[in-house]
Amino acid sequence: MNRLRTGFSETDALLILGAKNIRYLTGFTGGDGALMAGPDWLILLVDGRFVTQARAEVPEVEIFEFRNRVEGVAAVAGRRGVGSVGFESPLLSVEEYLRLKEALPEVKLRPLPKGFELFRAVKDEGEIDRIREAARISGEALVAVREMIRPGVREEEIALELEYRMRRGGAEQVSFETIVAAGPDAALPHATPGRREIADGDFVIIDYGAVFEGYHSDETCTVVVGHASDRQREVYRFVLEAHDRAIRAIRAGVSCGEIDRIARACLAEAGMAGFFSHGTGHGVGLDVHEAPRLASGREEILQAGMVVTVEPGVYIPGVWGIRIEDTVLVKQEGCEILTRTSKELSVIEH
Amino acid sequence: MNRLRTGFSETDALLILGAKNIRYLTGFTGGDGALMAGPDWLILLVDGRFVTQARAEVPEVEIFEFRNRVEGVAAVAGRRGVGSVGFESPLLSVEEYLRLKEALPEVKLRPLPKGFELFRAVKDEGEIDRIREAARISGEALVAVREMIRPGVREEEIALELEYRMRRGGAEQVSFETIVAAGPDAALPHATPGRREIADGDFVIIDYGAVFEGYHSDETCTVVVGHASDRQREVYRFVLEAHDRAIRAIRAGVSCGEIDRIARACLAEAGMAGFFSHGTGHGVGLDVHEAPRLASGREEILQAGMVVTVEPGVYIPGVWGIRIEDTVLVKQEGCEILTRTSKELSVIEH
Repeated sequence: MNRLRTGFSETDALLILGAKNIRYLTGFTGGDGALMAGPDWLILLVDGRFVTQARAEVPEVEIFEFRNRVEGVAAVAGRRGVGSVGFESPLLSVEEYLRLKEALPEVKLRPLPKGFELFRAVKDEGEIDRIREAARISGEALVAVREMIRPGVREEEIALELEYRMRRGGAEQVSFETIVAAGPDAALPHATPGRREIADGDFVIIDYGAVFEGYHSDETCTVVVGHASDRQREVYRFVLEAHDRAIRAIRAGVSCGEIDRIARACLAEAGMAGFFSHGTGHGVGLDVHEAPRLASGREEILQAGMVVTVEPGVYIPGVWGIRIEDTVLVKQEGCEILTRTSKELSVIEH
Repeated sequence: MNRLRTGFSETDALLILGAKNIRYLTGFTGGDGALMAGPDWLILLVDGRFVTQARAEVPEVEIFEFRNRVEGVAAVAGRRGVGSVGFESPLLSVEEYLRLKEALPEVKLRPLPKGFELFRAVKDEGEIDRIREAARISGEALVAVREMIRPGVREEEIALELEYRMRRGGAEQVSFETIVAAGPDAALPHATPGRREIADGDFVIIDYGAVFEGYHSDETCTVVVGHASDRQREVYRFVLEAHDRAIRAIRAGVSCGEIDRIARACLAEAGMAGFFSHGTGHGVGLDVHEAPRLASGREEILQAGMVVTVEPGVYIPGVWGIRIEDTVLVKQEGCEILTRTSKELSVIEH
């Protein structure tokens, strides 16, 4: 709970609603509930579905069973005589907030300070090992399905086999719905794999990851099928250069916005800035997307132990797209790349 | 948009944030963004990742690209001269709400009336066909993996094969992380499949579903491996009776709370009310859990065309559990069961 200390600076108690935050602080994996914490007390609130599981997973913590989460929080706050409660404003809905205000008219509800969500950002060795293992599992699965990537095979078939291999290989889940996007579909940064058949000369974006003991990996490879045109090779080099420069800049003490600026400037030099339509990266851990964000203007400072993605891309609507992504561990000097697939342009012969 | 008409009774415009609500109203499947609607205008707001996709999927709707969702909403509200905006209070975070209030100090932000989320509850024939197809795909996958369920096989192996079969059989996704819970794990209503090996005499709860063209199925079978004790047979009969009675009571005009009461009363007669720790059911559609909820005291009235689950269960901590669930279509008289697996106690010989 030491990492939560900042939360108590202005409030009597913290109300933690994020399932991954609860898991991080207690070990409860149920995925729903609430955690309330004072300077010297901790109560896990769950509904009836999770009581048995909560008692088994966190035997040392008091469990409070509720039928309705707001009523549960109000009951605990009343019992503990709490005067003010800090809460995760990005995770509490307005609906619950209004009911909570009504149930606790005397209690001050205060959004936790900006940056609170960074408390999970610096990983310990156990967490890093889990991310490393997730990256190993996912990388090996990609090696196994690589030979499937050939003209006539549908995006969804590759996505399914890749997910199946990750799970057979030890992933408890996949990090997110795998993206396999070929040809013009690759110009959609968040394409859903569909029935499109891969064609000769297609770029195929594969954005995928595995979950191991709750921790995620995240990696994107863009391969080309059969042969690459000169223009494809040229733009791939631009994206790879943006990726490499950003990674070379990562070390403790650099701001997140600076990494984004470096990747973006590199693509701008190539005249491609207008085709890079998303941020450069994000933290990875119990969530596949978590703090910090590596995006324009973000002032958070990278610290040793943070794990973040670097994923510049170029998307040319209706034509094709390229994204190159690694998950890296920030170190005092430089960083370590945790995802294992080579990012040199891979031409898949058939 | 006719189904949204109630939303305009007190506001100039609606702000729709729920991804499934946006999909329902426009066909945009991107999964992130916002939809703003006035009595005679409609604007879809998306970030750069989704612009190409939005233009392709909803060519008839104006697309507004934002870098930050709140800024986008504020810009559109300003441009349209909106004085009040109704929003989905269960889906807007306090963080975005506070920023929106700051960006639009003159605009009244009003939670949409309770029950707004019911606008998707009555399904048309196309939606029902998709749910029926999802149920067919999932049911056939279960038949195919049934022979795997024997002593020594791990929960996670069955879950993986079942999910793989659903996807190979035409599911674009699985409805939710499949639950396969054996022996004492079956006493956890939301167990995650783990490394536990199935043992002779175990109850195995399998809660699973498929997604077809965006629509979900949801079904739970509890089977017994090898042989069932007299007590297992007896309690299974209690749960099945609660399930059957609830289903026999479903028709247009009955309240959701009444269905829950019937299932609960049936288990109470058997002395098992204390072991039924969740609601009786929920709506199913573009979300696997959506309005209405079939739970104690819920006053919503079932209407023909609603699709809901009926899923009573009994969970005896540390011992075993049983849940029996079907997804049904509410009709003027009675209901039609869309999930296809027999709910008679199935003893899997080995």
